[in-house]
Amino acid sequence: MRVPVELSKAYRLLNHGPTVLISAEFGVQRNVMACAWAMPVDFEPPKVALVIDRNTFTRGLVEDAGRLAISVPCVAQARLVTLLGTHSGHEQDKLSAYDVQVLEEPAAHSPLVAGCVAWLDCVVIRRPEIEQAHDLFLAEVTAAWANSKVFSNGRWHFGSGDDKLRTLHHVAGGHYFATGAEVDGQH
Amino acid sequence: MRVPVELSKAYRLLNHGPTVLISAEFGVQRNVMACAWAMPVDFEPPKVALVIDRNTFTRGLVEDAGRLAISVPCVAQARLVTLLGTHSGHEQDKLSAYDVQVLEEPAAHSPLVAGCVAWLDCVVIRRPEIEQAHDLFLAEVTAAWANSKVFSNGRWHFGSGDDKLRTLHHVAGGHYFATGAEVDGQH
Repeated sequence: MRVPVELSKAYRLLNHGPTVLISAEFGVQRNVMACAWAMPVDFEPPKVALVIDRNTFTRGLVEDAGRLAISVPCVAQARLVTLLGTHSGHEQDKLSAYDVQVLEEPAAHSPLVAGCVAWLDCVVIRRPEIEQAHDLFLAEVTAAWANSKVFSNGRWHFGSGDDKLRTLHHVAGGHYFATGAEVDGQH
Repeated sequence: MRVPVELSKAYRLLNHGPTVLISAEFGVQRNVMACAWAMPVDFEPPKVALVIDRNTFTRGLVEDAGRLAISVPCVAQARLVTLLGTHSGHEQDKLSAYDVQVLEEPAAHSPLVAGCVAWLDCVVIRRPEIEQAHDLFLAEVTAAWANSKVFSNGRWHFGSGDDKLRTLHHVAGGHYFATGAEVDGQH
């Protein structure tokens, strides 16, 4: 079940470094791309940094809309993430080509991808100089949600039966690691 | 065994989103801190973005030296990473307090932490406006190394006996995930 995540805990959806999907919409156009280069940069209000290459179709939508959404995909979606990361919206409508479903979430300003396990709706913080020089974008998270089966009370909990819902960490060329075992670094 | 990683493959050391250690040295002062907010921003030359809070002792060393090193720690070091992330070099010499050993690597310009599984020596790309506004630093990787037991030929390979050498992904409060199972997203 999709439940809201309080903004003060939203950074935890990305803190472990998962590969994400970035989506944006402007006018009648929508697109979604894969992105391994996204991370939190502040706790509260939560802010993120992410790299959106200038050659992507999503880049133009993000610039025009001033908004984007981050969806955190899971192991069950690994092939979809690869497809969304290796094909361009300049060539095809990726949402229809790959049957990407968008959630019915009235509070979201950008498309949230169904089947993912967490979502962050964001407004872009314009920094034209680093956008131009490094393709690096900053954004503030304005709302967040998670699949309560694997994230609740501010923490991820991947149970033994949830391997398909574990988040993904891309290395290169469509090869990923799943988020693995819990490690206690306190004792 | 520590072996060089070619610069075109250095982004793969961070692409899966591990928590890292950041170290810097200026004059007779050295420090090392934990950082979950670090990621690649370019392939070649490889560049990274990382958040270094203005209250850290490391921040001053990085600004003065114009250089930093990223060491990628492993499960065996989880408690050390937590200690280095919750204590400040303003209060104590963390290297001696926590018995942090620095590698003898003549080619490195900043301290590389022993026991880690990968290292990236970097020169800071000064962007004062985002350093000030977001504590966000950019750096170019000038040399990289990895422990060949878990990274070679441009790829991570955590074998069944290497669980203590898996990289770490911090969530919050000294709780981590280990890098988990390989996932094929090509087929």
